[in-house]
Amino acid sequence: MRLSRYFLPVAKETPSEAQIVSHQLMLRAGLIKQQQAGVYVWLPFGLKVLRNIEKIVREEQDRSGALELLMPTMQSADLWRESGRYDDYGAEMLRIKDRHERDMLFGPTAEEVVTDVVRTYIRSYKDLPLNLYNIQWKFRDEVRPRFGVMRGREFLMKDAYSFDIDADSAVDAYRKMFLAYLRTFQRLGLRGVPMRAATGPIGGDLSHEFIILAKNGESAVFYDSVYEDKDWTTTDISFENDDASKSARKAMVDEVLAAYAATDEMHEEEQFLANVPEDRRREGRGIEVGHIFFFGDKYSKPMNAKVMGKDGKEHVLQMGSYGIGVSRLVGAVIEASHDEHGIIWPTEIAPFNLGIVNLKSGDTACDELCKKIYDLATAKGLDPLYDDRDERAGAKFATMDVIGVPKQVVIGPRGVANGIVEVKNRKTQEKTEMKIEDFLKSIE
Amino acid sequence: MRLSRYFLPVAKETPSEAQIVSHQLMLRAGLIKQQQAGVYVWLPFGLKVLRNIEKIVREEQDRSGALELLMPTMQSADLWRESGRYDDYGAEMLRIKDRHERDMLFGPTAEEVVTDVVRTYIRSYKDLPLNLYNIQWKFRDEVRPRFGVMRGREFLMKDAYSFDIDADSAVDAYRKMFLAYLRTFQRLGLRGVPMRAATGPIGGDLSHEFIILAKNGESAVFYDSVYEDKDWTTTDISFENDDASKSARKAMVDEVLAAYAATDEMHEEEQFLANVPEDRRREGRGIEVGHIFFFGDKYSKPMNAKVMGKDGKEHVLQMGSYGIGVSRLVGAVIEASHDEHGIIWPTEIAPFNLGIVNLKSGDTACDELCKKIYDLATAKGLDPLYDDRDERAGAKFATMDVIGVPKQVVIGPRGVANGIVEVKNRKTQEKTEMKIEDFLKSIE
Repeated sequence: MRLSRYFLPVAKETPSEAQIVSHQLMLRAGLIKQQQAGVYVWLPFGLKVLRNIEKIVREEQDRSGALELLMPTMQSADLWRESGRYDDYGAEMLRIKDRHERDMLFGPTAEEVVTDVVRTYIRSYKDLPLNLYNIQWKFRDEVRPRFGVMRGREFLMKDAYSFDIDADSAVDAYRKMFLAYLRTFQRLGLRGVPMRAATGPIGGDLSHEFIILAKNGESAVFYDSVYEDKDWTTTDISFENDDASKSARKAMVDEVLAAYAATDEMHEEEQFLANVPEDRRREGRGIEVGHIFFFGDKYSKPMNAKVMGKDGKEHVLQMGSYGIGVSRLVGAVIEASHDEHGIIWPTEIAPFNLGIVNLKSGDTACDELCKKIYDLATAKGLDPLYDDRDERAGAKFATMDVIGVPKQVVIGPRGVANGIVEVKNRKTQEKTEMKIEDFLKSIE
Repeated sequence: MRLSRYFLPVAKETPSEAQIVSHQLMLRAGLIKQQQAGVYVWLPFGLKVLRNIEKIVREEQDRSGALELLMPTMQSADLWRESGRYDDYGAEMLRIKDRHERDMLFGPTAEEVVTDVVRTYIRSYKDLPLNLYNIQWKFRDEVRPRFGVMRGREFLMKDAYSFDIDADSAVDAYRKMFLAYLRTFQRLGLRGVPMRAATGPIGGDLSHEFIILAKNGESAVFYDSVYEDKDWTTTDISFENDDASKSARKAMVDEVLAAYAATDEMHEEEQFLANVPEDRRREGRGIEVGHIFFFGDKYSKPMNAKVMGKDGKEHVLQMGSYGIGVSRLVGAVIEASHDEHGIIWPTEIAPFNLGIVNLKSGDTACDELCKKIYDLATAKGLDPLYDDRDERAGAKFATMDVIGVPKQVVIGPRGVANGIVEVKNRKTQEKTEMKIEDFLKSIE
């Protein structure tokens, strides 16, 4: 993309309305614009990051065997009356009447809608296990929306729902998602530490929050540093349904959960001190980026979602649900990874991976070299951002840094005359001179 | 995808609640499930088609130079009060109060929100021309939603908004979208014929509907068959902003519009007969799949969206807006392309491009050959659907046909013994026998 044709409103000043660094940087670097309290327009640059995160989340859901569908934002109140949640949910649910005075709501979650889908079509144990997910906008009418996309009202969530014939199989579905989440967050450049959690308005028997460390996190967290050791992206995890795969999943999850990890809500200091050697104790603040639940027949029973079992009898489905805050992750990643110059994107989600800074737009030699690099990088499948604007060098450097382009190449008249470009690493701020032909080879 | 692991609820019977063939087939072939009147769950198969269409629409918007952003579904009423549309819009607008009794609405369109974005950041003629688009769910509270996704309430729309310094430049932006639409619909396997249109609640000076022919179309249409001649997908269209490109665009659009095309609303029989030779007269019914508008300062003036011009003076922005009904297109494609067996997908949007029918699941030789074909097709980047279920042959054939897999290979014990498979063309229903090795080569 040529910056002169892009829409990237970068601000020099830190916006006064933002209290935390991710919100400040998302406004300054032109990712979002507030439309109303807790509701945002995703500007082109922000949308690019959001889609990159969404893509990884989707790939890992697909890998785990979950199937993607798409539920509407508008849900009928009748389904929520069946489950009993319509009256229970409280003021966070956005209640709406249509022109015929029928009660609807903007889905804050979708257990009822998906259970209705499954009870309509699924008749037999042969169609199970089944896990259906979607990535869709949700609305929760927070009393005081704040911290930008971290606690917004309209937000993008990945929500998956598992359906099984019995509790054993449902717990296996839970473990599949548990492992898929460990992979997902690590691919995003984060450590999502699973912590035992209260079940809240979703309900149920078993629940874990996945939490990443960040100074501005909403909860205090305590965990064993073994959570930082394992590379889940290279761990071989089978998501097949044979017995050996199931046992392997159980062993992996049990091993993970043997180590201590808790938020302040569930923290037991004595246990923490007793079970975690001093050098492995980690304390800090954390941000919830995922939450998984096993809740058995909480929805399937009142909604009468049953299948015929092998035994010729009807069985009420056993369910779980599994959320990832996709839009929230954009803020969480920035909280976890930034410096005084701006955002530092983890490689896998960086919205542009090569920045081209033309120090003298209009100078024929500079323009030609920049265009050559731009065309070559584009042809090689990189996603370059070329600052071809007529701007001061300082402003160009600041823009590349605040938006966090991981690798930047700087082209100026003197360098071009000497056959040299400067290559900068955004994270380390290290600059190295390279011969032009060496640089061109490096992106080939 | 293996059908045994997929969620594809195909029904034998034509559902009684559906009046038109696209709605019937979308229910029968497991694309959608109604959640409430005019609101649908997109099941995995339907979502796959929807995403394929969305992808082509996006590629052509990007090609034209438009930039993608994402606006929220919830919009504040205040912006609509600024433009004067809050009171004008009528009962189709879904009006909502949040917990603090603030007025919001579920966006039926987004002129106000995008104008607010532009007035916030764009200051100078140097930042123009600018065209911002998004693909987002909209809501229009139809009195009588019907015909499935063709006249739903919650629907997916691509809406683009152009901003220019003066009317000349804005008309050029209009022409860019006009040409992009011709390309888009043709890539979808359709002919979108541009017809002069009334401007309705969007308002404005210049407007065209893009209409495809279909028996169940909502309007009668009359046009010159020259609209069916040109291949826009291979026509070289420059979307650059130099004068030569602008002139070329004007010439192309003028040539298109010289031919007659009108819906019954705007039809003038005398002109039609006078200007179109008898053998080129086309009459029928059509479905609107796109609508474009140029409306000057209708929104920018009341909302005070101005930029500094070259002349050092402030200019009120000139705007246009450009919609494509993305979810509606799924129904429109089916209306335009089906037979008594089911859906016939145009190649570019077919959700699976190779069907593998195992006539005897459980038979070692059949299973092995099917798996070999499946693995090879997958490795070659095809998207095969393998019917590995324990079902009657008739049911398997009917499933492949109703969901419209363009090419199907049938593997049975007798064929395998003789080194032969049967290959079926969904559209022509033609079957040919092929040697196994020849078939394998054909997908390599």
